[in-house]
Amino acid sequence: MHYPDHLLKLIYTLKKLPGVGQKTAERFAFQLLNWPTPQLNELAATISQIPNKLIPCEECGCIKGTQGCYFCEQTVRNNQILCVLANAKDVFSIEETGEYKGLYHVLGGLLSPLDQTGPDELSIEKLKSRVVTRDVKEVIIALDSTLEGDATSLFLKQELAPLGVQISRLAFGLPMGSALDYVDGGTLAKAFSGRNQF
Amino acid sequence: MHYPDHLLKLIYTLKKLPGVGQKTAERFAFQLLNWPTPQLNELAATISQIPNKLIPCEECGCIKGTQGCYFCEQTVRNNQILCVLANAKDVFSIEETGEYKGLYHVLGGLLSPLDQTGPDELSIEKLKSRVVTRDVKEVIIALDSTLEGDATSLFLKQELAPLGVQISRLAFGLPMGSALDYVDGGTLAKAFSGRNQF
Repeated sequence: MHYPDHLLKLIYTLKKLPGVGQKTAERFAFQLLNWPTPQLNELAATISQIPNKLIPCEECGCIKGTQGCYFCEQTVRNNQILCVLANAKDVFSIEETGEYKGLYHVLGGLLSPLDQTGPDELSIEKLKSRVVTRDVKEVIIALDSTLEGDATSLFLKQELAPLGVQISRLAFGLPMGSALDYVDGGTLAKAFSGRNQF
Repeated sequence: MHYPDHLLKLIYTLKKLPGVGQKTAERFAFQLLNWPTPQLNELAATISQIPNKLIPCEECGCIKGTQGCYFCEQTVRNNQILCVLANAKDVFSIEETGEYKGLYHVLGGLLSPLDQTGPDELSIEKLKSRVVTRDVKEVIIALDSTLEGDATSLFLKQELAPLGVQISRLAFGLPMGSALDYVDGGTLAKAFSGRNQF
């Protein structure tokens, strides 16, 4: 395509967003061309202010705004339960369910040798020190049910076991509203072995 | 969601991109949180420089960079044929086919009473003056095969007829690689009535 240089640069940069390929980036770029200047400047300012306005909480690793961490600063939460998650986004998903009133701990990823993410890249030492200093009674592992999620969960279990804390992991089973016909074999097997008294 | 204010603002702004809903905007926003600061600043700068670096060509209405209009400034193009398109993006699509070596004219939209786009909002007077001053022999109307595209094409035909220029419109018919089974009735009827000697 004979796009002007700046348009090529814009498309190239937009393609770095997740799930955005050449076609979508082109659509975004041509849409941005039609935006009025103040709106473009607002988007640019919002993006460039991210590093100043959205910083990870030193305590839990979640995103805190300039007003402080929404989760760590609540006094009504049960601070003897820690829910361990891979990413800050997951914190908001769990919070949205309204099922959990303890504290969170964001690892910052999952163990993945292929992506060169080892234990040192994750916030595991901080997790252990929080468990000890806060006298935590239960650690709930809320990681993906993938190979990396399983490996990270096992590693955490190994690391936390000597601290004498209760460790649990999210239940596996049928998704709500699913028909047995459409559920894969792995999920069905897990739901079977984890059946509860009814 | 209890997102920090700035994150809410970022998500709200990203949702203005075409085809981006709440979930996608959240995914983009959390991805941006992981970008290093220089990369964020580059994206912000690229966006805010759009109004200075990507401006419409006064002649054809396409996007020109700071080096001038790629299309109008080529001396090898046949400047007695004009291809009329709704948007700048379409120019690059036509150019990519390699089928056309004339000049372009971007209308800036299609007639659409519902969106309050009338003839005055489109670059129609400029088209007429280009046809006259450049002694154009043929105007090729390359607009969508939609209600708005049809209405705009008919309007252009009416406006251009008194200038004595030849007017053509893109062919309608079967898309390449299509099976008759899957082609809708309207397309099939157009392909039938527009059949060529073989």
